[in-house]
Amino acid sequence: MAEPLFGRLALIGIGLIGSSIAHAARQNGLVKEIVVQTRSQKTLDRARELGLGNAYTLDPAEAADGADLVIACVPVGASEQVAKAIGPVLKPGAIVSDVGSVKTSVVKQMGNYLPADVHFVPAHPIAGTEHSGPDAGFAELFQSRWCILTPPEGTDPKAVEKLAAFWRGIGANVEVMSAEHHDLVLAITSHIPHLIAYNIVGTAADMEESVRAEVIKFSASGFRDFTRIAASDPTMWRDIFLHNKDAVLEMLGRFTEDLTALQRAIRRGDGNTLFDLFTRTRAIRRGIVEMGQDTSEADFGRRHGTGTPAGE
Amino acid sequence: MAEPLFGRLALIGIGLIGSSIAHAARQNGLVKEIVVQTRSQKTLDRARELGLGNAYTLDPAEAADGADLVIACVPVGASEQVAKAIGPVLKPGAIVSDVGSVKTSVVKQMGNYLPADVHFVPAHPIAGTEHSGPDAGFAELFQSRWCILTPPEGTDPKAVEKLAAFWRGIGANVEVMSAEHHDLVLAITSHIPHLIAYNIVGTAADMEESVRAEVIKFSASGFRDFTRIAASDPTMWRDIFLHNKDAVLEMLGRFTEDLTALQRAIRRGDGNTLFDLFTRTRAIRRGIVEMGQDTSEADFGRRHGTGTPAGE
Repeated sequence: MAEPLFGRLALIGIGLIGSSIAHAARQNGLVKEIVVQTRSQKTLDRARELGLGNAYTLDPAEAADGADLVIACVPVGASEQVAKAIGPVLKPGAIVSDVGSVKTSVVKQMGNYLPADVHFVPAHPIAGTEHSGPDAGFAELFQSRWCILTPPEGTDPKAVEKLAAFWRGIGANVEVMSAEHHDLVLAITSHIPHLIAYNIVGTAADMEESVRAEVIKFSASGFRDFTRIAASDPTMWRDIFLHNKDAVLEMLGRFTEDLTALQRAIRRGDGNTLFDLFTRTRAIRRGIVEMGQDTSEADFGRRHGTGTPAGE
Repeated sequence: MAEPLFGRLALIGIGLIGSSIAHAARQNGLVKEIVVQTRSQKTLDRARELGLGNAYTLDPAEAADGADLVIACVPVGASEQVAKAIGPVLKPGAIVSDVGSVKTSVVKQMGNYLPADVHFVPAHPIAGTEHSGPDAGFAELFQSRWCILTPPEGTDPKAVEKLAAFWRGIGANVEVMSAEHHDLVLAITSHIPHLIAYNIVGTAADMEESVRAEVIKFSASGFRDFTRIAASDPTMWRDIFLHNKDAVLEMLGRFTEDLTALQRAIRRGDGNTLFDLFTRTRAIRRGIVEMGQDTSEADFGRRHGTGTPAGE
C-alpha cells in the first residue's frame, strides 16, 4: 500500500458521516491515525467499542492539536463553535474541512476563527441513509457518490487537490463549485424534497386515528418513499433549513406557485394541463437514469416477496 | 395442479397491470384461458408476440363474451366506455372487476351498464413500477402487495371471496373496504405524494438551464426518489386526479396549510417547530418498517458502487 495521504486525521463528531469516513479512510489506507472527538461520553464510549479511531477525546482542541486533516462532521449549526475551539491549536499547513449540507453559512461561521496559515476547504459528500449515530457508518457509503468542494476564493489549489484525492480515495466523485451555487442547487435537489417529505408525513400523522393506521398499511403506494426521507436526522435538518433559509424560501416560493396552478387545474377538471406536466417530468427522470444516477429497476430493485405485511 | 378458479379470463387493456395479471394468472394456474383486448393494433400485436393470451381482439365485447372473469385494466377515465361495451354480452354469473386507483368514480361509471345477473367487484392492486405497456409486466408484481376490493353494498359474498382467492393466488394480500374510504386513504398515501412529486420535478424542469443540468447530476440527495414517482404513466395519473378530485383537494388543502406553517417557521428562524415535526415524522417511518412495508436498508438496499455517474 502507498504512503497514506495524511498523517493524523481528526474527526470532530462521529455520527453517520464521521463514522463512515473513519471506516473508509482506514480501509483505503489514506491516513496513519484517526483521533475521534464527540461531545457525549456515551457516544465516545461507543466509538471506542466500535474501534473507529486510534485515540478518543471529548475536547475538540485536543483532537485537532497536531492533526494534518480536521473534518468537522457536525450539524451545520455547530460549525462556529467547532472552529472557535480548534482555531488556536491548529498546526500550520493543516487542512480544515467539514461535511455540512449548507456551505455559505459554514464558510461564514468557520472562516473567521481559522488562522491564515491553515487551508480551509469546505466539503459536502452527497450520501446518507435514514440512520444516525456511530453504529450507522459503513465504508462504502461514499462509493460512486458526489462530494462537492467549495473552497473560498484564494484557497491554495494544492490543498484543494489533496482533499479531493482523499475523497476520491474513499470512492467519491469530486466536483468543485462556489458555496453560493452549491446552496442553490442543493435547495432544489435536496432541501425542498426533504421539507416536503417531512411535511406530508406530518400531515398524515395529524389525521384521525382510523385513517392513520391505514396510511402505514398502504404506504407502498407512494407515501413510503417520503417516510424514508422524513426519517432523516432532525437536528441535522433543522440546521439545514435555518442556515440555507434564503435559497430554501426562494425555491419553496416557486414550488407552491406551481402547486397552486396544479390545484386549480384539478378543481377545473383541466386534464390537458395535468397531462402536459406529467409528460414533461418523465424527461427529467430519463436524464437521471441515463446518467447512471439511479436504477430503472422496478421498485428500486427492492426484492419482491420479502416483505411480510401484517394482517391476512 | 388444482382445477383453475376461472374458465375464461378477459383482460380489457394490456398495459403494465394487465400484462402482469396475464403472466401471474398463467404461472399460478388460476385460469384456463386468457383473452386479451386492447384498442391499439400495435399493442395487440405486441401482446401476441409476448404470448400473453390465448386469443386477441380489438373489440371489448368480443373479449368479454363468454368470459367468467372480466378485468378492466384501463385508465380510470375509460371505465365507463368499457362497461358500456361489455354490458350487453356478459354471461350471467360472470364477475366483472377492474384495477383502477380510484374506486367511487369507477363504481359510478360502470355500475349502471352492468346487468343485474353479473357480480361487480371493483379492485385496486397497490403495485406498480415506473414503466408502462405490455412489455413492462411480470408475474411477481403483486407478490406481498395489497389488493383492495370495494364491492358495492349487496354484492354476493361468494363472488367477493372468489375474486379475493384469485388475487391471493397471484400473491397479493386482500383487504375489503368501502369505495369512499379507499379513495380517502389513497388520496393521502398515493395521490398527493404523486402530485407533489410531479410538481417538484416540474419546478426543477423550469429552472434556468445551468441549474437544471446539475439537478440531474446531484439528484441522489433526495430529488431522485421524486423523479421515479413522477415518471409514472401520464394518462393514468391525469385520470386519477380528475376522478378523485374531492378527496385530493381536501388532502391538498391540509398539506398546503401545514407547508405554510413550516415556511413561516423557517422565515422566523423557529428551530423548535422544525425539530418537533422532524422528530414526529420518524415515528411514522418506524411504523412502516415494523409492519414490514419497507426495508430499513441504506438507500433502499440499492447496490452501492454500481452507478456510473458522468464526469470525473
